[in-house]
Amino acid sequence: MKTFLECIPCFMNQALKAGRIASNDENTIKQILNEVGKMVEDIPMENTPPETGMLIYQKISEISGNPDPYKKIKKKNMDEAISLLPMLEEIIDKSDDRLLTAIRFAIAGNVIDLGVNREFDIKTALNEVLTQDFAIFDYDDFKQKLAETDEILYLGDNSGEAVFDKILIREIGKPVTFVVKEKPIINDITINEAKYLGIDKIAKIISSGMEAPGTIINMCNDEFVKKFYSSKIIISKGQGNYEGLSGINVPIFFMLRAKCPVIAKDINVPIDSIILENNYKKEN
Amino acid sequence: MKTFLECIPCFMNQALKAGRIASNDENTIKQILNEVGKMVEDIPMENTPPETGMLIYQKISEISGNPDPYKKIKKKNMDEAISLLPMLEEIIDKSDDRLLTAIRFAIAGNVIDLGVNREFDIKTALNEVLTQDFAIFDYDDFKQKLAETDEILYLGDNSGEAVFDKILIREIGKPVTFVVKEKPIINDITINEAKYLGIDKIAKIISSGMEAPGTIINMCNDEFVKKFYSSKIIISKGQGNYEGLSGINVPIFFMLRAKCPVIAKDINVPIDSIILENNYKKEN
Repeated sequence: MKTFLECIPCFMNQALKAGRIASNDENTIKQILNEVGKMVEDIPMENTPPETGMLIYQKISEISGNPDPYKKIKKKNMDEAISLLPMLEEIIDKSDDRLLTAIRFAIAGNVIDLGVNREFDIKTALNEVLTQDFAIFDYDDFKQKLAETDEILYLGDNSGEAVFDKILIREIGKPVTFVVKEKPIINDITINEAKYLGIDKIAKIISSGMEAPGTIINMCNDEFVKKFYSSKIIISKGQGNYEGLSGINVPIFFMLRAKCPVIAKDINVPIDSIILENNYKKEN
Repeated sequence: MKTFLECIPCFMNQALKAGRIASNDENTIKQILNEVGKMVEDIPMENTPPETGMLIYQKISEISGNPDPYKKIKKKNMDEAISLLPMLEEIIDKSDDRLLTAIRFAIAGNVIDLGVNREFDIKTALNEVLTQDFAIFDYDDFKQKLAETDEILYLGDNSGEAVFDKILIREIGKPVTFVVKEKPIINDITINEAKYLGIDKIAKIISSGMEAPGTIINMCNDEFVKKFYSSKIIISKGQGNYEGLSGINVPIFFMLRAKCPVIAKDINVPIDSIILENNYKKEN
């Protein structure tokens, strides 16, 4: 997805929000805003938003001297999500379709996204997503693709969300390669959080090499790129991965809630829609 | 009121919004955002937000070549407000306190503010403001000051809003000097709109000399400044005038709805509060 004009004030908002998390010093935060302001001119509108996002968050880390401003927040989000597990297990045990319920959980987890300007409450989000109709629902395609393959490439998104991803990985019941970011970027999952959650016990973990809040294929490492293009089924979680990967003609299933109005418009669904979209079908 | 860090992403949002109104060309709007981005570094945080707002909207006019981007919108807002007059007259005739109802109307009109990022609907706003409790309600002070003086200085704000101001001016029933902006700035009222609404028939109209979306006393013309400091009662409408004048020790009554979270925080009221505040009491 290309960058839209609406993304620019949003970058500034994100810089303020992340600046406040990275630093308590008003002058430092103003300096972050100054630098992001100067960057506007150089934002290539044909690039995807996470490419610019990466530069902005790198600038925030550089100016604040804080390489992982969301460290505490990630821990808090993961622990909160873990505390919901007994409730989630009960819901899934009672559900008619365990896989679909797990997909709904995995999308609900995507609401835990601090990069965009929205309040969130995990329990409310869970309840909503469990009952909300999908705006795009390529579930039959998904099940068919899943049946046809022995390995799934699973692109993680936020750290807290990964607690829910674990449930989906278990319900999929086939070998999964779980992809994390190379370095801390906003609240995205890296190898550290993945290990904290024990994802290494149920899946193979690889890094995409990305330092951006999304997956931009020409910035990824060779191991990931090879895996990406040879996979028969890829699960892509969240908005950042969608922004980077939409339009690439491979069998990706996007699972996300369209919290950002620009992304919702790009997908052609109302804001706050939940989608399970077969990208391959769309592109072919 | 000084500029807060939150104002900076808001300036960028306003630039996008106004840019879209001033131009249909995406490159022109991007150029506006580039220039506003570069301005961030030079924003003096000790200045009031309308001082920066002025520079931003001037830049938008300069780049788009459109000296009055809100011209059509002002006309539409005024005509919409005029169409409500029969309803307003009926409400005021039935009310127990005509002056207070007129004040409520004048504040409701303040919701017609396109400079901030909010949807608005005049009728909904009217109904809300007619029943909403005031968060600050110095009405007794106001009536007392009004009784003690023979002339009122009335600082206008938005163009559509001025339809409601006319009702309040009539209910005040004393000579009023109505203050307009010198040049078009967002949807603020200038001499052109004031004449269109016939305010010159019921009040003396003067220009403050301002080209900013608010009143910044050290940028005003001599006539206004003299009048301002000699007035026994000043009615100041809206957020922009508040931002410029809060903290000045003169008998100003602020009438506004605190639509902006930063202004609400500065006044120390919840967002969307309506206030009739005796600034003089607060400052003494």
